[in-house]
Amino acid sequence: MSLLVTGSIAIDTIKTPYGFSENCIGGSAVYFSMAASFFYPVRLVGAVGSDCPFDMAKIFAGRSVDLAGLEVRKNSKTFRWIGSYRENMDERTTDYIELNVLEEAPPDVPAEFKYSNFVFLANTAPNLQLKLLNQIDNPVFVAADTMDFWIEGQLEDLKKLLKKINCLMLNEDEARLLAKEHNLIKAADKILGIGTDVVIIKKGESGSLMCNSNGDRFILPAYPATVVKDPTGAGDSFAGGFMGYLAQAGKADFASLKTAVAYGTVVAAFTIADFSLNGLSSIDKTNIDNRLETLREVTSF
Amino acid sequence: MSLLVTGSIAIDTIKTPYGFSENCIGGSAVYFSMAASFFYPVRLVGAVGSDCPFDMAKIFAGRSVDLAGLEVRKNSKTFRWIGSYRENMDERTTDYIELNVLEEAPPDVPAEFKYSNFVFLANTAPNLQLKLLNQIDNPVFVAADTMDFWIEGQLEDLKKLLKKINCLMLNEDEARLLAKEHNLIKAADKILGIGTDVVIIKKGESGSLMCNSNGDRFILPAYPATVVKDPTGAGDSFAGGFMGYLAQAGKADFASLKTAVAYGTVVAAFTIADFSLNGLSSIDKTNIDNRLETLREVTSF
Repeated sequence: MSLLVTGSIAIDTIKTPYGFSENCIGGSAVYFSMAASFFYPVRLVGAVGSDCPFDMAKIFAGRSVDLAGLEVRKNSKTFRWIGSYRENMDERTTDYIELNVLEEAPPDVPAEFKYSNFVFLANTAPNLQLKLLNQIDNPVFVAADTMDFWIEGQLEDLKKLLKKINCLMLNEDEARLLAKEHNLIKAADKILGIGTDVVIIKKGESGSLMCNSNGDRFILPAYPATVVKDPTGAGDSFAGGFMGYLAQAGKADFASLKTAVAYGTVVAAFTIADFSLNGLSSIDKTNIDNRLETLREVTSF
Repeated sequence: MSLLVTGSIAIDTIKTPYGFSENCIGGSAVYFSMAASFFYPVRLVGAVGSDCPFDMAKIFAGRSVDLAGLEVRKNSKTFRWIGSYRENMDERTTDYIELNVLEEAPPDVPAEFKYSNFVFLANTAPNLQLKLLNQIDNPVFVAADTMDFWIEGQLEDLKKLLKKINCLMLNEDEARLLAKEHNLIKAADKILGIGTDVVIIKKGESGSLMCNSNGDRFILPAYPATVVKDPTGAGDSFAGGFMGYLAQAGKADFASLKTAVAYGTVVAAFTIADFSLNGLSSIDKTNIDNRLETLREVTSF
């Protein structure tokens, strides 16, 4: 089995009620890779500009993250994001954004990555997600993230993408927008009608809902975290724990998907406990497994 | 064991995006009693005016609901409420309210009800809840509901009440208001610091959170209902299923409390599937047990 992610590497500046972190490492591919590497080796595909201040090999030192798909583009600049969170940590404001390298052609998937079984297409324009996916030969399980901007502006491309992937992840507002339906169970069923096999609707501090086209359903609360300093990267860490577990299990039946959602939930809770990658870089797999048992205990009856 | 509820009997008029129900039976004691009677005999304490159009004995026909505590006050009028719900069924508007009998002295607890083990004090002014509770001899487990109006206006009485009861139920906004804390786990712990043993925070379509003063926690999603016609009575039906199961079990250890929350969740889902009592009057205990198993299945991993 093999696991590949396509996504962003970002220079983030984040303000929350609990602190401030300037020019720290971020981006969907980075959070995903950190989270997934607890479970399975990760192949990272992404691009930075020549201004990138981070030594990616050092950031992933000691972790099984293959950087053969990391492009450093000489005449480009790295994606930058400045954002802030208020007391209600579920809502965030983008204060400043420079897409830079993200506005260019997507990176090439290296020849040695083309045969990858489990693939995560982090949030970007759905036509770019399709172009990236087209570079992979016969993947087994493909998951993608999306957002309101693409649902509103590139719906036809998104629908094409949905027919090519196995799992869509999106948040509750995005699910309602895409399905034009308030009830989330019905919304999930409507999205499944467009084309994917599995839909995971993320509800922030209220957890997540997973439905598949066979009518199977799974509902899991968020991990009961009392320390939430910076929600940035929660969704991509969730995806990383989810896909990392599936790649490790080597299968994607509904029982495995349920456990994968639980692992994603737990890993995301570590991410939001501190700024940038600090929450994930300070733990090991035992911490994750212990929290999984706690989550099982506090949700079972 | 014995189970007693104090609360309202209402003439409700309800508008939702799915229909309209005029002058139908409602009220906290009514929803509670219907819900709890699936599990255990219920003693109802409440008052109506001489205008009450409902034959309460007929409404509870075939169910074990003892109406010895129902006062019909000749010179009073029954509580009336007119409310409406928008597409987001979590939010409701009170369009018209007549407190009538609810503004008067609370009903007397009949002599034959004074020795009751499990007691639910439905939402009303905390000083009235205290007066009602003072009429009960040595209850084993007392739960109470409250709302923002009392938290803002009668906080000291509410704190006195908290020291006398075993379990407080309130919704997430009310919990944040009472605790002055956004994080719900921390909010629950702060409320437990004021005086009760167990706090249940209801989160509407996102389920509920239960914490006790020993640090035990339980988080359960809502039942995945696709049919929601009228949310009125959901909270009191939850309380009815919860307290009914506890009375039946004859104990309130944390394992029993978890199962009780699950039963409350399931019963509330039946209530909201139709207007007034129609959702509850059309089912039997087998339907409830089947949904409990479904809820266990869709939440376990």
